[in-house]
Amino acid sequence: MAEGKAAAAVREDRLWQRHADMAKLGGTPKGGVNRQALSAEDAAARNLLGAWATARGFSLFTDAIGNLFVRREGTDASARPVMSGSHMDSQPTGGRFDGMYGVLAAFESLEALEDAGLRTRRPVVAVAWTNEEGSRFQPGAMGSAVFAGHNRLDEMLQVKDWKGVVLKDALAETLKAAPAPLRDGPPGFPLDFYVEAHIEQGPRLENEKKTIGVVTAIQGSRRYIVSVAGEEAHAGTTPRAARKDAFAAALRIAQAMYEATTDRDDTLRFTIGRVDVAPGSPNTVPGKAVFTIDMRHPSDAVLDTHEKKLEEIVAARAAPCTAGIERVTAVAPTVFDPAVIDLVRAKAGALGLPNMDMPSGAGHDAMHIAKLCPSGMIFVPCERGISHNEIENATPQDLAAGARVLAEVLAALANR
Amino acid sequence: MAEGKAAAAVREDRLWQRHADMAKLGGTPKGGVNRQALSAEDAAARNLLGAWATARGFSLFTDAIGNLFVRREGTDASARPVMSGSHMDSQPTGGRFDGMYGVLAAFESLEALEDAGLRTRRPVVAVAWTNEEGSRFQPGAMGSAVFAGHNRLDEMLQVKDWKGVVLKDALAETLKAAPAPLRDGPPGFPLDFYVEAHIEQGPRLENEKKTIGVVTAIQGSRRYIVSVAGEEAHAGTTPRAARKDAFAAALRIAQAMYEATTDRDDTLRFTIGRVDVAPGSPNTVPGKAVFTIDMRHPSDAVLDTHEKKLEEIVAARAAPCTAGIERVTAVAPTVFDPAVIDLVRAKAGALGLPNMDMPSGAGHDAMHIAKLCPSGMIFVPCERGISHNEIENATPQDLAAGARVLAEVLAALANR
Repeated sequence: MAEGKAAAAVREDRLWQRHADMAKLGGTPKGGVNRQALSAEDAAARNLLGAWATARGFSLFTDAIGNLFVRREGTDASARPVMSGSHMDSQPTGGRFDGMYGVLAAFESLEALEDAGLRTRRPVVAVAWTNEEGSRFQPGAMGSAVFAGHNRLDEMLQVKDWKGVVLKDALAETLKAAPAPLRDGPPGFPLDFYVEAHIEQGPRLENEKKTIGVVTAIQGSRRYIVSVAGEEAHAGTTPRAARKDAFAAALRIAQAMYEATTDRDDTLRFTIGRVDVAPGSPNTVPGKAVFTIDMRHPSDAVLDTHEKKLEEIVAARAAPCTAGIERVTAVAPTVFDPAVIDLVRAKAGALGLPNMDMPSGAGHDAMHIAKLCPSGMIFVPCERGISHNEIENATPQDLAAGARVLAEVLAALANR
Repeated sequence: MAEGKAAAAVREDRLWQRHADMAKLGGTPKGGVNRQALSAEDAAARNLLGAWATARGFSLFTDAIGNLFVRREGTDASARPVMSGSHMDSQPTGGRFDGMYGVLAAFESLEALEDAGLRTRRPVVAVAWTNEEGSRFQPGAMGSAVFAGHNRLDEMLQVKDWKGVVLKDALAETLKAAPAPLRDGPPGFPLDFYVEAHIEQGPRLENEKKTIGVVTAIQGSRRYIVSVAGEEAHAGTTPRAARKDAFAAALRIAQAMYEATTDRDDTLRFTIGRVDVAPGSPNTVPGKAVFTIDMRHPSDAVLDTHEKKLEEIVAARAAPCTAGIERVTAVAPTVFDPAVIDLVRAKAGALGLPNMDMPSGAGHDAMHIAKLCPSGMIFVPCERGISHNEIENATPQDLAAGARVLAEVLAALANR
């Protein structure tokens, strides 16, 4: 199969128009979307994708958690498929590219293969995973997690949203009008490779003027709560020397933590996002301060090292207050397959697209599928790195460039 | 008149018992009091003081804002009186000494003069000012402010509590059963001197093992709000270099402020009591941070100097965020009369009581009366400096020591 033919058949205008058509489903006045998992808007998006797939002669099916698969057959009916996709659900005030781009880039790849008349040995499947965002039903990345056997189907079907709606019922409602039959049997099936395209959701590609991010890993993330206990006192009468000011101690601790997590290559992510100071009266010395830490890095060893530093800082800087640090969650990094990473980089290079290796800062469905088969991801820039926001934006050119790399990668993998 | 005779007639047991009797009115299970201004408990305290006064043959009257006066006549009916007192209202979860001690020490002084058979030229008046705490009706120190002409009587009578009760009605209800007639005419009358006794509400006397605080001033206080604006961003995907982290900037500003307000003699009070960080999500870089500053010092010039430093720090440390500082209140320091200060120090010395000069960290009724006549204050220790708290405590010995100094000071001033 001639290299570059799949990429050449990717149509920028078609891909852009499909984003515009999908953005109408749950569209918000500010140009974003509210298309939460298993809502009427999600059902409409599934039906639209299904209609496009049927019109192109692709087959369509769903599984018991509602993941939607669009399949273009290969020449070897017994070969394990190559899969690509992402999700169509959004945050309540989400953008039109987060997730949807990965689904439409995969579908565009199938259309490009079709338009170019390219046969592949393996089937190529575009997938829309159910409920990646987790805004309505918790946890997020649910469809891919169930597919990969990480979460149990029966438990997930019983999850309720904040109005008390059971996921099982919302799913049945969503699929009622769907063109695809619900598959029986356990979720998941053997895959040969998985590649997910996504907007970066960060500013690095834009800042470094690159079109393609060759995603090497999804960084590990850990969350902590730091609690500082001091003593409430009168702001007017209590001398500094007699104070046990919980906020002043929290501030010393936080300042030392910011310094200890300042790495030269700016890879470690350290965020204090929530801060509570009690009693919160302007004329009372704070008796209590609590703050959260979100720390992420592609290497678990680096996270271990810095976790130790955080613990040392809490122990060393709290006096005359007392303080503790508690780890509340730890998600291990996902390291993508070297062969997929190399292939993405090579295809981007062959297409003359400026590219860079980078870890993903956010979690994606690929972190679950990477446990099933060799996997990778392709990033394209988004404006100022803004995502989970109605003003999220990307250019038709960059989206098409990513789809071209994806089409080439899928064509190559499907012919192995 | 023989020096020391008034002090010798002060009775520690009687003064302590009066505190215990008053503590029953609005007493709380934890040993504190809830005796808010113009409540049934406040009325009961007024009536009890009135009954004690009447039993001793002192005259009793109130003014139009409900300040309660107990008067022991002097030999010169036309001489301006010497006055002492404080307040009987409490915080909702207040202690039994805050305010009440100043009223009972003044009343004990009147009784001591009486018991010792000491005649004075001027009348000596014990006062219980209305609504010093300001917990129910705003502003606090209301009775003394109206007496001094600082607040307008007609405006104060229209103030409502959080249930919508108008102060005028609560006052009428409070005084209905009172033994004292309501005086007509404008509030206030000429005074010769004013001296207020109070628990310190801070730890300095206890820490330095002194019994008497010779109060030189009430420090000035200023309040500020610092607002920092950054940009919300994804905690996982946004590199440090691309962040505008409002909390990190607030922290740099606050740290520099703590350092800039660290004076060698530990007189400047600098407190960050309230901190709000938005959006307050653990995995979002904060886009906004707001904190309050309470800064106090006996010298307005020192406050001016440090206010300028705070402004410079906000301007210098905010980048890459933007920040502003706004002064929301400024109360000028009260400097007490040198003659009264010297007299308090001399009487404490003559009684062999360890004493030290000190400014008051908290505001008191004396700050208003000091604008009418030469004034001063006497502090006694309270346990661990804890006040505005049901566990507020003081010893019978210290309370009596303060009353002895007060009785001697009042006797001296009343014979000038």
